[in-house]
Amino acid sequence: MTKVAVVLSGCGYLDGAEIREAVCTLVSLDRRGATVEMFAPNIEQRDVINHLTGKPTNEKRNVLVEAARIARGQIRDLKEAKAKDFDALILPGGYGAAKNLSDIAIKGADGTVNEDLKKLISEFMLASKPVGVICIAPAVLAAATKGKHKVHVTLGEKDPDGLIGKLGSIHQGCQTLGIVIDDANHVVSTPAYMSEAPIAEVAEGIDKLVESIINQVQNAKRAA
Amino acid sequence: MTKVAVVLSGCGYLDGAEIREAVCTLVSLDRRGATVEMFAPNIEQRDVINHLTGKPTNEKRNVLVEAARIARGQIRDLKEAKAKDFDALILPGGYGAAKNLSDIAIKGADGTVNEDLKKLISEFMLASKPVGVICIAPAVLAAATKGKHKVHVTLGEKDPDGLIGKLGSIHQGCQTLGIVIDDANHVVSTPAYMSEAPIAEVAEGIDKLVESIINQVQNAKRAA
Repeated sequence: MTKVAVVLSGCGYLDGAEIREAVCTLVSLDRRGATVEMFAPNIEQRDVINHLTGKPTNEKRNVLVEAARIARGQIRDLKEAKAKDFDALILPGGYGAAKNLSDIAIKGADGTVNEDLKKLISEFMLASKPVGVICIAPAVLAAATKGKHKVHVTLGEKDPDGLIGKLGSIHQGCQTLGIVIDDANHVVSTPAYMSEAPIAEVAEGIDKLVESIINQVQNAKRAA
Repeated sequence: MTKVAVVLSGCGYLDGAEIREAVCTLVSLDRRGATVEMFAPNIEQRDVINHLTGKPTNEKRNVLVEAARIARGQIRDLKEAKAKDFDALILPGGYGAAKNLSDIAIKGADGTVNEDLKKLISEFMLASKPVGVICIAPAVLAAATKGKHKVHVTLGEKDPDGLIGKLGSIHQGCQTLGIVIDDANHVVSTPAYMSEAPIAEVAEGIDKLVESIINQVQNAKRAA
């Protein structure tokens, strides 16, 4: 049985995890027989955005508590996640990845990544266990591995700000329906809601990412 | 092109719409070529529940504003929904359906349904346009049509409180993977998260519901 850790960053694409990307990830993993544990940092959200108006509110919300809405309560503090307990790691996107799991939404290529997540990603990569990154999460991965790994990832057809390059990695153009596989680093990425694509295309891109991750895990287990 | 109205009740199964049911509905509708508009009532949530602890908080949240998280901002006030603009209506579940779209979570069979939703359901049924109800939403439909229609719907393998019967309708046992079709009333239901089923089963039950709804719309158009 393939065990996958999924890290969420809240609940709602403007201040947390992209809900549809997270749900599509869970559906694909379950269809392919994987077991899942979800994690999120137990920290205050950087901001709370009214998703009807797109404007910030004065509320305070906690990333772990809001992510529990997607997880139906079955979620733990990111501090408790260890690569040794899992075969693979997947990070859905949403601004929460760039605001709560890192500060690249504010600082761009000078941004840093949540220390617990940085450590977790490092553990997975050191163990050659596959990591899947969706939407803006490839930039979080590039920031987390800056100066250590040069990963091939996608943010969609273009990376207009050259963010991935500035973070020391390599951007590869890709459509919503596609994935980019970095064989050397065991990293898979898909653009999902980096553009306003139809949800069925987002779901298909994510399903291909999940398929690739599961195949990599099974191939590694067979080879071991 | 089939046009479907989807009514949400917030964002999170304990105080709003069941997120996964809503997303699976959107994916299935898009895969099957339907266009979707989303609606939610512009009212305060009955309560806000911390989904990590399951306990109520002191926050105030608005149903429409929270539902906009699932809808990525593309959602309108339920008051604006008219059956004449759509071919079908779908209500995902979650406690929000029983707390915000109605008060059956509190009053059971004595509960009443949001007047705008009651009017909308009535318009769809009068026009013989199909209505899909997921999870606890079949009870909302039964409450909305109490004394007018005797609908055959499911809340899962059993309706332990006899709620559907008390609401003047008929409960039919069904597994998560299945659907119940009431041909006479053009109503389709599926249990989804009425039990703690694997998400792939929930997705499959919802996909069958969407398939049945779309087929009914296409058959009616062919016959017209």
